[in-house]
Amino acid sequence: MKIEKRYTIAEDSSAQFNNHVDFCVGTGRMGLALQKEYQDQLELVQKYIGFKHIRGHGLFHDDMAIYQENREKFWDPESPVHREYNFTYLDLVMDAYRRVGLRPFLELGFMPKKLAKSENRVFYWQGHTSPPKDYELWKDLIKATLGHLMERYGADEVVTWPVEVWNEPNLPGFWENADMKEYFRLFDESFEAVKSVDQRFKVGGPAICGVNDPVWIDGFLAHCREKGIKPDFITRHHYTTEQPDRQGHYVYQELMDPEEGFENLKSTRDIIDGYPEFRGLDIHLTEFSTSYSPDNPIHDTNQNAAFLAHQLSRLGDVNESYSYWTFGDIFEENGVPFAPFYGGFGLVANGCIPKPTFWTFVFFKQLGERECVLKTDECVVVKTENGYRGVVWNSQRDRKGVSLDVTVTLPAEGEYCLLTETVDEKTCNPLKIWHDLGEPRSLKPAQKAILREAAKPLAETERITAGGTAEIRFELDEFAVKYFDLSLAPLTPDRGFDYDRAVRNK
Amino acid sequence: MKIEKRYTIAEDSSAQFNNHVDFCVGTGRMGLALQKEYQDQLELVQKYIGFKHIRGHGLFHDDMAIYQENREKFWDPESPVHREYNFTYLDLVMDAYRRVGLRPFLELGFMPKKLAKSENRVFYWQGHTSPPKDYELWKDLIKATLGHLMERYGADEVVTWPVEVWNEPNLPGFWENADMKEYFRLFDESFEAVKSVDQRFKVGGPAICGVNDPVWIDGFLAHCREKGIKPDFITRHHYTTEQPDRQGHYVYQELMDPEEGFENLKSTRDIIDGYPEFRGLDIHLTEFSTSYSPDNPIHDTNQNAAFLAHQLSRLGDVNESYSYWTFGDIFEENGVPFAPFYGGFGLVANGCIPKPTFWTFVFFKQLGERECVLKTDECVVVKTENGYRGVVWNSQRDRKGVSLDVTVTLPAEGEYCLLTETVDEKTCNPLKIWHDLGEPRSLKPAQKAILREAAKPLAETERITAGGTAEIRFELDEFAVKYFDLSLAPLTPDRGFDYDRAVRNK
Amino acid sequence: MKIEKRYTIAEDSSAQFNNHVDFCVGTGRMGLALQKEYQDQLELVQKYIGFKHIRGHGLFHDDMAIYQENREKFWDPESPVHREYNFTYLDLVMDAYRRVGLRPFLELGFMPKKLAKSENRVFYWQGHTSPPKDYELWKDLIKATLGHLMERYGADEVVTWPVEVWNEPNLPGFWENADMKEYFRLFDESFEAVKSVDQRFKVGGPAICGVNDPVWIDGFLAHCREKGIKPDFITRHHYTTEQPDRQGHYVYQELMDPEEGFENLKSTRDIIDGYPEFRGLDIHLTEFSTSYSPDNPIHDTNQNAAFLAHQLSRLGDVNESYSYWTFGDIFEENGVPFAPFYGGFGLVANGCIPKPTFWTFVFFKQLGERECVLKTDECVVVKTENGYRGVVWNSQRDRKGVSLDVTVTLPAEGEYCLLTETVDEKTCNPLKIWHDLGEPRSLKPAQKAILREAAKPLAETERITAGGTAEIRFELDEFAVKYFDLSLAPLTPDRGFDYDRAVRNK
Amino acid sequence: MKIEKRYTIAEDSSAQFNNHVDFCVGTGRMGLALQKEYQDQLELVQKYIGFKHIRGHGLFHDDMAIYQENREKFWDPESPVHREYNFTYLDLVMDAYRRVGLRPFLELGFMPKKLAKSENRVFYWQGHTSPPKDYELWKDLIKATLGHLMERYGADEVVTWPVEVWNEPNLPGFWENADMKEYFRLFDESFEAVKSVDQRFKVGGPAICGVNDPVWIDGFLAHCREKGIKPDFITRHHYTTEQPDRQGHYVYQELMDPEEGFENLKSTRDIIDGYPEFRGLDIHLTEFSTSYSPDNPIHDTNQNAAFLAHQLSRLGDVNESYSYWTFGDIFEENGVPFAPFYGGFGLVANGCIPKPTFWTFVFFKQLGERECVLKTDECVVVKTENGYRGVVWNSQRDRKGVSLDVTVTLPAEGEYCLLTETVDEKTCNPLKIWHDLGEPRSLKPAQKAILREAAKPLAETERITAGGTAEIRFELDEFAVKYFDLSLAPLTPDRGFDYDRAVRNK
Repeated sequence: MKIEKRYTIAEDSSAQFNNHVDFCVGTGRMGLALQKEYQDQLELVQKYIGFKHIRGHGLFHDDMAIYQENREKFWDPESPVHREYNFTYLDLVMDAYRRVGLRPFLELGFMPKKLAKSENRVFYWQGHTSPPKDYELWKDLIKATLGHLMERYGADEVVTWPVEVWNEPNLPGFWENADMKEYFRLFDESFEAVKSVDQRFKVGGPAICGVNDPVWIDGFLAHCREKGIKPDFITRHHYTTEQPDRQGHYVYQELMDPEEGFENLKSTRDIIDGYPEFRGLDIHLTEFSTSYSPDNPIHDTNQNAAFLAHQLSRLGDVNESYSYWTFGDIFEENGVPFAPFYGGFGLVANGCIPKPTFWTFVFFKQLGERECVLKTDECVVVKTENGYRGVVWNSQRDRKGVSLDVTVTLPAEGEYCLLTETVDEKTCNPLKIWHDLGEPRSLKPAQKAILREAAKPLAETERITAGGTAEIRFELDEFAVKYFDLSLAPLTPDRGFDYDRAVRNK
Repeated sequence: MKIEKRYTIAEDSSAQFNNHVDFCVGTGRMGLALQKEYQDQLELVQKYIGFKHIRGHGLFHDDMAIYQENREKFWDPESPVHREYNFTYLDLVMDAYRRVGLRPFLELGFMPKKLAKSENRVFYWQGHTSPPKDYELWKDLIKATLGHLMERYGADEVVTWPVEVWNEPNLPGFWENADMKEYFRLFDESFEAVKSVDQRFKVGGPAICGVNDPVWIDGFLAHCREKGIKPDFITRHHYTTEQPDRQGHYVYQELMDPEEGFENLKSTRDIIDGYPEFRGLDIHLTEFSTSYSPDNPIHDTNQNAAFLAHQLSRLGDVNESYSYWTFGDIFEENGVPFAPFYGGFGLVANGCIPKPTFWTFVFFKQLGERECVLKTDECVVVKTENGYRGVVWNSQRDRKGVSLDVTVTLPAEGEYCLLTETVDEKTCNPLKIWHDLGEPRSLKPAQKAILREAAKPLAETERITAGGTAEIRFELDEFAVKYFDLSLAPLTPDRGFDYDRAVRNK
Repeated sequence: MKIEKRYTIAEDSSAQFNNHVDFCVGTGRMGLALQKEYQDQLELVQKYIGFKHIRGHGLFHDDMAIYQENREKFWDPESPVHREYNFTYLDLVMDAYRRVGLRPFLELGFMPKKLAKSENRVFYWQGHTSPPKDYELWKDLIKATLGHLMERYGADEVVTWPVEVWNEPNLPGFWENADMKEYFRLFDESFEAVKSVDQRFKVGGPAICGVNDPVWIDGFLAHCREKGIKPDFITRHHYTTEQPDRQGHYVYQELMDPEEGFENLKSTRDIIDGYPEFRGLDIHLTEFSTSYSPDNPIHDTNQNAAFLAHQLSRLGDVNESYSYWTFGDIFEENGVPFAPFYGGFGLVANGCIPKPTFWTFVFFKQLGERECVLKTDECVVVKTENGYRGVVWNSQRDRKGVSLDVTVTLPAEGEYCLLTETVDEKTCNPLKIWHDLGEPRSLKPAQKAILREAAKPLAETERITAGGTAEIRFELDEFAVKYFDLSLAPLTPDRGFDYDRAVRNK
Repeated sequence: MKIEKRYTIAEDSSAQFNNHVDFCVGTGRMGLALQKEYQDQLELVQKYIGFKHIRGHGLFHDDMAIYQENREKFWDPESPVHREYNFTYLDLVMDAYRRVGLRPFLELGFMPKKLAKSENRVFYWQGHTSPPKDYELWKDLIKATLGHLMERYGADEVVTWPVEVWNEPNLPGFWENADMKEYFRLFDESFEAVKSVDQRFKVGGPAICGVNDPVWIDGFLAHCREKGIKPDFITRHHYTTEQPDRQGHYVYQELMDPEEGFENLKSTRDIIDGYPEFRGLDIHLTEFSTSYSPDNPIHDTNQNAAFLAHQLSRLGDVNESYSYWTFGDIFEENGVPFAPFYGGFGLVANGCIPKPTFWTFVFFKQLGERECVLKTDECVVVKTENGYRGVVWNSQRDRKGVSLDVTVTLPAEGEYCLLTETVDEKTCNPLKIWHDLGEPRSLKPAQKAILREAAKPLAETERITAGGTAEIRFELDEFAVKYFDLSLAPLTPDRGFDYDRAVRNK
């Protein structure tokens, strides 16, 4: 099956496209940031994409070792308790982020074991998810941590790091009993603690998982109005798959209709804008992806890359940012992965192998915040100083063998070079190569090298001479994503150089 | 036009293939080795190919500053002259070679200006190519230089560096009047000087350019017999293009019939073997390429890569080694190049961009010295511990639109992965991309990045289940070179991982 | 107070000195090897010292995630259990070791939680230290792990990695009830499991902590004799401090008389040699240091460096190797450290700052396995191809203001250069500098830079002209360690260079 | 002999100190910038000092290959000549500068051979130093070069690169017959050419060598006034040694009285300010050092470091900048150096070994542009946010065994850390170490490592408790340079950490 689309761009064409592709990215829990493989993956991501912020769980989890309670004499249960803060690992993590140009989007959570009210926990790594046993101690912890960061990295710097209160309190695994009222207390106390350190901090919530939950958004805003608190932004998450089916270590799911997701996001926007005092408040999607399962193979596919291209073209419509969950595959929520390709959330697979979706982000990053002249369900095109750039994709919810031809007619005059970079199942599909290699769980160096090389887009160029308009055409196999750059490039041959003769060897 | 070839390999098939692809590589004059861009290109070459030796001109050229004559008082022409040696730059160059695992294949030449008998010179860089004004000073220079190297790098190490006397003395540009008798004297004196430092050194000549010149080989051997000298090896060069046509900065030539070249090489072998005392003496092709012009665009093409594949499959037939002229494009014989793609000899273009021929070398390197089971004019196949590897090419002397299908039937049992890497005009053709970009003489960083990425082979894989034999088929566009590796790779899925389900997303 | 010593070396002087300084080094638990800071410290250590092996706890600890038990359906306690092995992190760790040229000295331990018989645990990181609930599962785990390593790194390579059974079973924290009989069973089963994988593996024990415990060594050997098992080597530990006094996060102890320790080591040797069938069996001290406390500030002092110099000169007397506990300060046995200088075991402090003791190891490494001509309680001197090298130290058990002068008379003829590198409280004392900086717990980049620079020895040189003998003299402040190299170095001035004139500027 | 000095700083003390230490640095000719060793040395310099600009000769020298004249058919002297520009090497050099954060201070010169009017030449590398044979071609060359740079690096960027016309035209070696009138023509034509490319360029001259030459400065300004040209700045050089005495490859000289030099500089200032229209015009010392000889061993000494400290404290008095001649020792004006220490101009010796003077620059760089509170002939002190920084030196024109004690009393309140870094003949004297090693001309890796380590300052710290004022005292051996930083540093011990106990080990 083949679909054909034709578009024409005029000198005055324009379309709405808010490109915040690089504002923020997600990460496995903060303690994992100590790892070298984690940092190597992050470096790769930053070299090619260059996110501004990074957000994940576990700032206060026990492996970060920040909150400590120790008896004066550990052998004497009568001796006095010392409460102290340990920032040794926090410094290592923050230094690592700054080395690659990242600022945290701080998530306050989860609860240190010794501060937790109950044994409610989540994940293989056993994050404590109950309220604090004492809110004063919780607030002291926040203040000490922010104070330390400000001393180390400068107050003016640290107040630019957004602060989000907790994660997905509307799920009982993440917040005991999904107790909304208790969350509001947590929010109020945390909000006050942060602002008491420096009024300039931006603080937001409620960080809900985002599925069918207007009750929480509305409830949260009503609560804030009642308390006279003005949050600096609203946060929620956004995933786009249907019910999961688990098989062994893996989960399989069908993709949702993307329009359903966009409507759901719009409804959040509408609820907020219904409150006069909160109208226009920024919404940050502090997590989004196709599947919310850290072991769904879809994340590793070309289909994911194409679906995400569509998402990236639209998510800026009503949201200030959208943070892909996650940059890399060092991740332990369901345990340590058994194989390099395990359906992890990451843009990069373990072994520093970029997945197809990695390139979707690279391509959108190259569009920048330029003027948009065309946006459809298959492509987005922006204007550059000497031509046009765009991303074209063939996103399907299901494998049906659909290929797509997109033809765009553009205003153009002179000699151009059309550069195209293609990510599709044939040219850039490390999952398939890994499968063909026998699905090895332990990659030998030679296999790693092959996978890394094969995980790059195919670049092609073409010369185009235009007199008024140019017609450029893209053929996309199913799940293909293409980036193009059409730039003025008059031929400037050196004296005596004749390309045709060169390749004809006469 | 399409050609089809079918070959069958049996358990006991075998073919002669002496793979010395990595023994030696050529370089621009030694003084250029001080440059950073030169060293960067060499590092790239060594990372992927890993040559053992490197050979080029100019060890004694004045930019290396080894030989010095200075008056005691520079203002007083009556004051005594000091002859001294300066090894500052030689150390920098040798250290650079060793850092990337290379040993020199020393060429004694050219003549320091102050030691030259006349003003006979060659190249843009004005190498002096006359005999020494005094053979004793020449011998002192050789002894001092080898002595210094042995002190710095160890005698046992340095005696493993082969020594060749001069370069192409059969051309008057390289040796005044192409005076054969004078060359024999140079050889004798140099041979004696080297051996007097350490008998273990291997010394050879006459390093002739190799075109239609049996007179020199025969004359040289007759001379050696007469003098009772036994050279340790014989050297000559090997180029395979017809007459040049110059246009501006560039030269264009047609390729020779390769069989003519192989016959010419065979005749050298026969001449040597005609001398009982020299029978079987190693021949080193201390230079070879398609064109001998440092500004022939053919060097940058896919055609060159395919032609070279054929050469590499055959050059070991009668030669101990063959040194591709040259590894990189920092080169000044005809002047400093005006553009990144200028038809330079290099495997790598300026800007550290691998040319198609680079990959031909990488592919042959991966064959190693394994047992050969098939060698034809289109392919060579060797046996590995768990399958087969090979290189397949489509070499044509002229652009005629010939495509080639090669089918090989192999003994195989079980599940395999067939990895193929393709270098052809569509997948790995930086020259075309550079042309399409407008042939920019100054590469911007973004252009360099595109060219580097686009200069990599396309890797593809396929699973093959074989019961007794496997049939593998390669389709090659004109000038394509493909590497393949067929290896046992039974599927080892992790519990619950189902690749088909993964890519069908259900 | 000042002590003077004079020694004379004759042409035929000789002394016993078995220098195994670089055979093995200790490490925090294996899971910490995933960390970047850990790997950075290890890289520094390997660059300067270059150990051959590395040994630490925690191969089977749960953070390495090797041993897994999962229900088919995690929500259904009736569904079957899968036992599976996960080598994702093990590969990362082993790759990291190999990247810096290290082989593991494998310690089998501790117990995965799901395999543990009881809740007996040790350390902040809660290592399980009970016997396995099922010895067959334990043996399967060993076999699967070794099998995996052999497949990944090659059987011939992996069998060169020594294997030690457990750690300090004579302490109840490390082995439930310090049950000797149960340990013997663990040893027997483990020994059999390892040898069943490949007979070439070397396996040893009993890895006791080494304090006054002949009962265990003797008992272990008697057990082996009875069972007809021949261990490949014997292991124990060696620490040299008196009783601890704890204060806050820290422990303070006095140093032992070193002779007591040497006698204790000798007694182990004697016990072994008392068994005819075990006579001469290698003893590996798989841990040694001054204090066994990971929070004793002595580890960071110059005193430690001097005391260790003495140890390194003697430990080879009766032991095949001695593994300093540990190379670096990423370490969590008593929790995450609060400050960069916290009395950790490491040769390197957090922030990649070498401690004085680091240099003691560097100095001994430079002695190599050369012929020893002098060994006393203050120095060791070896012969080189063109002179002598040595280490001289001023070790005191207590701060008493003792300075030391050592004069050595050596056979020498000609012009020499005497190079001396000094590590003492004035020239190389990062702990003091950190104290003077205010003992900052969080190091700013500028402070880190100062500390790193100030943590290097002071190098000095002197020219010595000798006619028959040379007298070299070293003045050592308390706790100083000096390395020297006396080498023939005739002056070879360039024409016109006059050093005296140069520094007089006339 | 010992000199004692005491100074007191009050809250309101202030002194004039214009610190432009990092504005510009000199370099060997531009073609040498292609070398790897050159770039390595530059990287070291930039890492520690971070200059903003770099200036040297040879932009248009033939090894840069910019200016080309080639016949259409090189074998036919009747065929037309092509004038063309080759920017291949210029790009490599400029990219290298930008990689380390440097902008050129462009010097227009010397003359391409094919553009030179005569054979007047200078240096071992034979720079052509005659006027152009045709001023139009010269102007075309300037315009083409600047145009190319602007296209490659951006116009807004390139116009910030100052442009100086020629070098030392008042010496006949550098400008044929030191013809002042001809220089004025060169200046006028060049000025016009540069401004015609972009008016924003800053252009200056006359770049005279600076010795006793008011005639040139005055003549130049009178000429400009007459022609109605306003140069953007005035340039001259500044060297401070007496007559040279040559011996072999080396030159020895006595140092001048520094005050003579300062007066000479002042006189240039006065001449300029005597012209109302030029009053206050910036003066750039585009070269300065002690000796103007590239083979005077003084450059490698501690004496040079101390003398330069004095210079750096004063040169900003009447000059906008002062460019140390040169950053490194890859330099060929008198030939390729024979030894790593050869009295080269560089801050860094070949082998990447910092000389003592390197640290003088590092120390002054750390003073920044802070408020100066004390400046004398022995020290300069500035105020920081939490204390004071300063440089103290003991500069003597001759070796007389003078030591110096400087005591400074400062306003201070609280606990401080006093950090001192010392460069003197005992602690940081690579020249002496190299001498003691026998003055090896070829450094082995181990020797290079020793020299690099030994070429670092000794860092020491001290705690000071002040109540109102603090008295800090510096003892300086002859030729010592010390940097200090006195900063508030209250002790913040971790719980239980007791430094005194730690170092007493009880």
